[in-house]
Amino acid sequence: MARTTSLSGFTEWLPQERLVELHVLDTLREVFERHGFSSVESRAVETVETLLQKGEIDKEIYGVSRLQAQDDAEARLALHFDLTVPFARYVVENAGHLAFPFRRYQIQKVWRGERPQDGRYREFTQADIDIVGDGALPFRCDVELAVVMARALESLPIGDFRLRVNNRRLSEGFYLSIGLQDTAAVLRAIDKLEKIGRERVAAELMETAGATAEQAEKALALAQIRTEDLSFVERVRALGGEHELLDAGLAELAEVIGELERRVPGRAVADLSIARGLDYYTGTVYETVLEGHESLGSICSGGRYESLASAGKRSFPGVGLSIGVTRLVSRMLTEGTVTSTRAVPSAVYVALRTDEDWGAAQDVADALRSRGVNVEVALRAEKFGKQIRHADRRGIPFVWFTDDQGLHEVKDIRSGEQVAADPRTWTPPEEDLVPRVLPAG
Amino acid sequence: MARTTSLSGFTEWLPQERLVELHVLDTLREVFERHGFSSVESRAVETVETLLQKGEIDKEIYGVSRLQAQDDAEARLALHFDLTVPFARYVVENAGHLAFPFRRYQIQKVWRGERPQDGRYREFTQADIDIVGDGALPFRCDVELAVVMARALESLPIGDFRLRVNNRRLSEGFYLSIGLQDTAAVLRAIDKLEKIGRERVAAELMETAGATAEQAEKALALAQIRTEDLSFVERVRALGGEHELLDAGLAELAEVIGELERRVPGRAVADLSIARGLDYYTGTVYETVLEGHESLGSICSGGRYESLASAGKRSFPGVGLSIGVTRLVSRMLTEGTVTSTRAVPSAVYVALRTDEDWGAAQDVADALRSRGVNVEVALRAEKFGKQIRHADRRGIPFVWFTDDQGLHEVKDIRSGEQVAADPRTWTPPEEDLVPRVLPAG
Repeated sequence: MARTTSLSGFTEWLPQERLVELHVLDTLREVFERHGFSSVESRAVETVETLLQKGEIDKEIYGVSRLQAQDDAEARLALHFDLTVPFARYVVENAGHLAFPFRRYQIQKVWRGERPQDGRYREFTQADIDIVGDGALPFRCDVELAVVMARALESLPIGDFRLRVNNRRLSEGFYLSIGLQDTAAVLRAIDKLEKIGRERVAAELMETAGATAEQAEKALALAQIRTEDLSFVERVRALGGEHELLDAGLAELAEVIGELERRVPGRAVADLSIARGLDYYTGTVYETVLEGHESLGSICSGGRYESLASAGKRSFPGVGLSIGVTRLVSRMLTEGTVTSTRAVPSAVYVALRTDEDWGAAQDVADALRSRGVNVEVALRAEKFGKQIRHADRRGIPFVWFTDDQGLHEVKDIRSGEQVAADPRTWTPPEEDLVPRVLPAG
Repeated sequence: MARTTSLSGFTEWLPQERLVELHVLDTLREVFERHGFSSVESRAVETVETLLQKGEIDKEIYGVSRLQAQDDAEARLALHFDLTVPFARYVVENAGHLAFPFRRYQIQKVWRGERPQDGRYREFTQADIDIVGDGALPFRCDVELAVVMARALESLPIGDFRLRVNNRRLSEGFYLSIGLQDTAAVLRAIDKLEKIGRERVAAELMETAGATAEQAEKALALAQIRTEDLSFVERVRALGGEHELLDAGLAELAEVIGELERRVPGRAVADLSIARGLDYYTGTVYETVLEGHESLGSICSGGRYESLASAGKRSFPGVGLSIGVTRLVSRMLTEGTVTSTRAVPSAVYVALRTDEDWGAAQDVADALRSRGVNVEVALRAEKFGKQIRHADRRGIPFVWFTDDQGLHEVKDIRSGEQVAADPRTWTPPEEDLVPRVLPAG
C-alpha cells in the first residue's frame, strides 16, 4: 500500500488488493442485477465536442490522437471523464433499440487530468446506475434508485454510511418564497458551506445572489436542517415561505426519506445543505458519506435530471447515482478495514513427488476442478518443505500429496492437519472454496 | 447488429449483446481462476517510451495529453495497444511483491489507431493469461497454458476451434541444419505463407534470407507439415537435418501436442507453418482458428518468450496467450451462432394494480430477491395488458399479480400459464433464474 506508482495519479493494485476490488465490483453487479439493471459499456473515447457540451471541465480532459496521424480530418477525440455524458449519447444513438424506462448499470474507468493530490486519481473506476425514461419518468424512480444504492453499499464491507438527500425544487422554491430570484447563484454559494463556512457563504450570497442579510440568514437556516426522519418538513415550514415548488419538493423529499427509512433503516438523512454543484439536476440530489471518513468527501452522488439527453423534440429524463469505486477501495486498503481470506484464487496446491508425476498431479487437479475447486499444480518436484512454503507464501490453504503407491493426503497448512483424501470426492470446507473479503476483525 | 456506430472502429453493444459479452468474460474468468490464475489490471496509459520499446508499431499508438496542459514537463503518455507490454512493466515494478512463478489473467480494453477495416477495431477487449518466472520457468508451463486456454475456449459457445502450435527452436534448428543462418529472415518470410503463397515466399527466401532454391524448397516443406498427432516428428526427421536446437524443439512440441491430445482431445494440431511475426518469441508459438471462420484470422495467439522483462541482471521469462474477445463476440453476434434466453437480468416483472400498490409490490419483489431472483417492479399502474406487453417486449418471462385481497398469481407469459404463488417460497425454474447464453439451435 505504501508503494509509489510510477505514474502519479494512476493506481495499480497488487493481486491481493485486486481481489478486494473484484469483490466490490462483483457485489455491486449482483445487487444491481437483482433489481433489474442491465449492464452497458460505452467506448472510452468521445468527441471533444460531446464532452464539452456540459461545459466547465475542459481543463480536466485528456485528449487522444494517433501519434502518427497524417491529417486533421479525424474528429477530435478525448477520454470520457464520467459515465453520464457517454450514457446520454448512447441513449440517443440507440433509442430505437432500447425499451424505456431503461435501467442500466455501468462500471468502467474514467480519466481526469487533474493534479493528482488529495486522494484524486487521474484514472479511476466509477459504478453508475440510472433509470431513463422516454419523455417522462415517474418520481418513484428517485426512491427506488436510492434504495438500490443503499443496499449495494450495505453489501460492501465499508462500515456505516449515510445517504444525504435533498431536493432542488424544495431549495429553489424556498429561495423564491423569500424573494431570492437567482436560485442558481444561491445554490452555488450554499454548495460551499462545508468548505468555507457560514460567514463566507453569507457574504457570497449578498455579493453574488443579491441577498439581504436577512435573506442570507434564512437561506442558511434552511441549509442547517438535517433530520433522519420526516421532522424536516415541520422545520422547513417553521421558517415560513410559501411556494408551489417548495411544496412539491417537500412532498418528494418526504417520500424518499420515508421509503428509505422503511426499506433501509438508518441509512438516509434529509440534509438540506446538499446542493450539488452541477447545473443539470432538477429534483432529488444525493450525496453519501462514510461515517468516520467524512474527509473522503462523497463516495456516491447523483440526482434527478429532467433531460439527460434530447434528440429533436424527444427528451430523456433520468435519475442516476454514481459510486467512486477506486477511492472507496483505496480507503478500504489503506485503513485496513477489510481483509481477504487469501491472496490468490487457488484453494489447493498439488505438490510433486517427482518431476515425472506432473501428469498424474494434473489428473488430481482436474478431478478437484471438476467440482468447482480452484487448483494449481507445482511446477517442480522440489523438497516437500519448499513446496509447502511456496503454497504458504502465496496463501493457498491446502497442499495435496500423492505417494508412490498412489495414496492421497491433503494437508491444511494453517492447522498442520493432514488426512487421507480422495480426489474424486474431497472438497475444501465451504469457507475455503474461494477467497472471501471480510471486514477486518 | 447492422447498426452503424458513430465513431468508426469503436463498437458498443446493445444491452442484450452485452449479455453475450459478459457471458464470455465470466466464463473466461471462471476457467482462469479454476487453474489458479490471479486477476491483474494495469492502467490504460503508459509512457510513450515504454510502448515503443518493442518497436515497429508506433503509428498505431494513440497519444494522450491534457487538452489544457500548461507545460511539457509531464511524461508523454499513450494508450496501451496490448496487455503484454503493460504487464511486463507491472512485473518489474512490483517484483518485490509478487510470488514467482506468477500466474495472472488480465481482461481489459486496448486501443490501436489502425484504419478500422477488415474487422479491425480501434478499441477492443483482450483476455490474456501468462505465467512468468523469476530467472527461469519450467517448460511444462507451455503445456499447461495451452491446456487452460483450450478449456477456456471449449467453454464458450463458439463452435469448433483448433490450436495451431509450433516451436521456434524447431524451425530455427531446422533452418540452421540446412545452412540458412539468418533464421529471423526465414521466419519473416514463412510467416507470410498463408497470405502470399508458396511461390512468393520462395522468392522472398532467396532474396532476403540468402536461400538457394533447394534451401527454400526445404524450408517450405517443413512449413507444409501439419498433423493432429505426434506423426509430425517422423515427417520432420524425414526431411533430414541435424541440429541440437531442432532436437530440443521437436521434443518440446511433441510434449505440448501429446499432452493436449490427452487432456483436450481434438483441439490441437502441430502446424509447422506458424511463425508469429513478433521477434520476442523464443520457443512454443500458438495461434487459434475457428473452424469454418478461418478468414477471421487467429482468435487467440501467443508463445514463450525467454525475457518478458528484465531489471538489471534479473530476467523474467514467461509464456502467454491472448484472446481477442471483441472480434470473437462480434462474430458470434453477426453470425447468430449464439442466443441469449432473454435480453435483461430480470426474471420477474411485478405488475401494479393501482399506483398505491407500489410499496406492497416492492415487498413482493424483495421477498423474491432475498432468494436470488432478479426482479423489477412496474413504475405505473397501467392496464395489465400493457404491463404484460412491456415485460414481453423486454423478454422478462414472468409477470406477478396481486389482487385486492392480497392473493398472488404468477404468469409465464411464454406459455400463458398463470398459477397461484407465494412470494416467500416461489422461485422460477432453474433455467429461467438468470439469462443464459447458448449456441443457436
